[in-house]
Amino acid sequence: MNAPTAALHLQPRAIPQAFLDALAARFGSRCSTAQAVREQHGRDEGSIQAPPPAAVVYAESTQDVADAVQLADQYEVPVIAYGAGSSLEGHLLAVQGGISIDVSRMNQVLRVNAEDMTVTVQPGILRKQLNDAIKDQGLFFPIDPGADASIGGMTSTRASGTNAVRYGTMRENVLALEVVTAQGRIIRTGNRAKKSAAGYDLTRLMVGSEGTLGIFTEITLRLFPLPEAVSAAVCSFPTIADAVHTVIQTIQMGVPIARVELVDAATVAMVNKHSNLTLREEPMLLMEFHGSPNGVKEQAEMVQDIAAEFDAKGFEWADTPEERTRLFTARHNAYFAGIQSRPGCRSITTDTCVPISRLADCLLESIDEVNASGIPYFLVGHVGDGNFHFGYLIDPDNADERHRAEALNHALVRRAIAMEGTCTGEHGIGIHKQDFLREECGDGAIAMMAAIKQALDPKNILNPGKIFTL
Amino acid sequence: MNAPTAALHLQPRAIPQAFLDALAARFGSRCSTAQAVREQHGRDEGSIQAPPPAAVVYAESTQDVADAVQLADQYEVPVIAYGAGSSLEGHLLAVQGGISIDVSRMNQVLRVNAEDMTVTVQPGILRKQLNDAIKDQGLFFPIDPGADASIGGMTSTRASGTNAVRYGTMRENVLALEVVTAQGRIIRTGNRAKKSAAGYDLTRLMVGSEGTLGIFTEITLRLFPLPEAVSAAVCSFPTIADAVHTVIQTIQMGVPIARVELVDAATVAMVNKHSNLTLREEPMLLMEFHGSPNGVKEQAEMVQDIAAEFDAKGFEWADTPEERTRLFTARHNAYFAGIQSRPGCRSITTDTCVPISRLADCLLESIDEVNASGIPYFLVGHVGDGNFHFGYLIDPDNADERHRAEALNHALVRRAIAMEGTCTGEHGIGIHKQDFLREECGDGAIAMMAAIKQALDPKNILNPGKIFTL
Repeated sequence: MNAPTAALHLQPRAIPQAFLDALAARFGSRCSTAQAVREQHGRDEGSIQAPPPAAVVYAESTQDVADAVQLADQYEVPVIAYGAGSSLEGHLLAVQGGISIDVSRMNQVLRVNAEDMTVTVQPGILRKQLNDAIKDQGLFFPIDPGADASIGGMTSTRASGTNAVRYGTMRENVLALEVVTAQGRIIRTGNRAKKSAAGYDLTRLMVGSEGTLGIFTEITLRLFPLPEAVSAAVCSFPTIADAVHTVIQTIQMGVPIARVELVDAATVAMVNKHSNLTLREEPMLLMEFHGSPNGVKEQAEMVQDIAAEFDAKGFEWADTPEERTRLFTARHNAYFAGIQSRPGCRSITTDTCVPISRLADCLLESIDEVNASGIPYFLVGHVGDGNFHFGYLIDPDNADERHRAEALNHALVRRAIAMEGTCTGEHGIGIHKQDFLREECGDGAIAMMAAIKQALDPKNILNPGKIFTL
Repeated sequence: MNAPTAALHLQPRAIPQAFLDALAARFGSRCSTAQAVREQHGRDEGSIQAPPPAAVVYAESTQDVADAVQLADQYEVPVIAYGAGSSLEGHLLAVQGGISIDVSRMNQVLRVNAEDMTVTVQPGILRKQLNDAIKDQGLFFPIDPGADASIGGMTSTRASGTNAVRYGTMRENVLALEVVTAQGRIIRTGNRAKKSAAGYDLTRLMVGSEGTLGIFTEITLRLFPLPEAVSAAVCSFPTIADAVHTVIQTIQMGVPIARVELVDAATVAMVNKHSNLTLREEPMLLMEFHGSPNGVKEQAEMVQDIAAEFDAKGFEWADTPEERTRLFTARHNAYFAGIQSRPGCRSITTDTCVPISRLADCLLESIDEVNASGIPYFLVGHVGDGNFHFGYLIDPDNADERHRAEALNHALVRRAIAMEGTCTGEHGIGIHKQDFLREECGDGAIAMMAAIKQALDPKNILNPGKIFTL
């Protein structure tokens, strides 16, 4: 059982010197073949490694991207778009060689339409930068995967994160795209109308396509009004089951909670150490409520009542922005806290998502399994969506540990699929989850995806070897 | 300017007798070639006509659909899925010949998951039948296009309607599908998890594909809790502009209104006559609020305050289910009231949708234009979404009237596109709006759609000649 094998065993394609010469002629100093630059663009935050791309082009406009892709099309060379490098499943790895198109300089807010609550941005803008740019207009973009990812990357992986329980994911919040196709043609999908029945939903097809169907050069997003009132709280529970059942009841009662994050006791200890906090080292929920002052109060009271039924204690409120930021930053740093807890380790991070009614079963069975394995781990979850992450903290040089961790991951994925869930709630497939995708979707759906890929990218130059291996 | 021309000028393909014999052998009395049956299946509620299909197969299972499509694949014969026949843009017309697969007998609720608020149904179930089946569990499916459409048809056209302003459209509310492909293969897309980043979003690609990429045999939908409190109101305004500005402010203030429908003065008069009502014959808004008793009260007060700024009068509340049903039934019957107002006429119904900030401009300019033309019309709109419908009431035998009405439609569509909107908010493209789709999306996006169609249906047997003409 080794999911990434197929993709990693592909032969990198030869890169013609004439292609590199043409790139250099077109992009000058914005085309780099320096080893350090290439290496930086040939990895992500995941645990898999591959040789770096042959060159990196720094695109500064849609036309730059189109021109680079036209050359790649002409010479049949793979192209991989690069935003912030925060993906987790090997999305950026040049497993078939090729070049990286770095869009991080394409980071402008192009148009804010405050009355319609939409914004059009370039793909390289980081989500925090976007929120800084629009907050004066009383608006925000809620999708928050933790990392300060680029909007282009978030669109490519159909990202979500802590706020998705209330605001949805990139699937619901990308309205329109400008896309450079595999032929280097510039097309537009979607528009700014709130709904449309105009032909195939190319926007939704592109969202989550992981750079394999097109490179995004403009992205139009839905925004939300900054909530009038925000309140956050932490509380602890005797068992994980109690915490999870609190969440399930909260969701089933329709409380519009904005965030509800689970952290298990051992992970709270890691977070305390990493972020210098003194949270109770018990299973914990972090919650946030958005709304009118009355609405927030009503929501918080309802959740407190539910939590009390499950023996919650230590309810602590964080009402200032600083306290809230401190709490959620600590939560977001759980990954790094986990990594730090075992020096030299790497994390194999799971991403299953199940219907909320199956969350307790899925989570508790999986905890028993990982505890029995003896592999150290952290555990956090966007549990309001039924999505949670184990990080199996393995010694990357220990093949046996990696194998056992992948086997745990596989068992968890099978459990989630049997419960009508998915192997990935938000991280995407990349090169790491391709076998899982096949188990989840079946050969028929994979064949349909592959047929679409081959129709739109017959030379297989757009991030080849990701999602599936043709 | 005559949008449907290209599709209608295609030659129907020959139907081999061996194919009809094979169908008869497989389906017996469930395959009909009776003239009346064929004619019933060869039309919809739109204004375009074409010769009927060569046969109608009544499918009772997924395997029936798969077998019929496999035969159609073998003999290269077009197949058109038929639900309730309520589409408006010629979706069901056998413009290239072929057969109709009637799924109306596949009308079962297969599984309700009350805890997750999801349901899996067969495609032929009607939306009222679905709601009757689940109301005892305190749940409802909100999408309401007016007609008692089939869920399969609503999925195919990406339908929405009066409740979409609050609950979204079929795009947001279809979670998973079982689909029979052009090769007669049965595949599954999506799952019941609330979010997923697992490969291409085939579910969203299928929603709105108008029968051209696959035939749906199971549909999993998101449900909502029946609101604790519901309240509805009508009020009148001195001008349409006042009514529209009330809506724009309501939306921009984030009031979670469940329905907000505009009816112009002349259409109110038609509705009064058709439904035997005595509504004030002035521009009118019909509104509905869902929530807790306090929430509904708060929402209603906010909207009343906004409406007062725009000189609303005659606020009347409908608090019993019977009164509410009477009001919204009258609204839904505006189409029939319009048709009845000019005996023998047919309606060419527009469907543009624009960003809410552009709604007043788009609507008012278009009203001036249609008034100047002298063509009688009705006007209603799901204005909270920026979506509205003119029904141009033409004499179907008067080519000049049809031509002028299509020209008005075209001018309106161009206006909406220039305002970053769409030619169709909810009715779909069918054969009627193909030129509009090209203007809206551009050749590049149409080429991408066509490439997908050709990849998934290389023999072009699935509802050929709809959305675009290959």
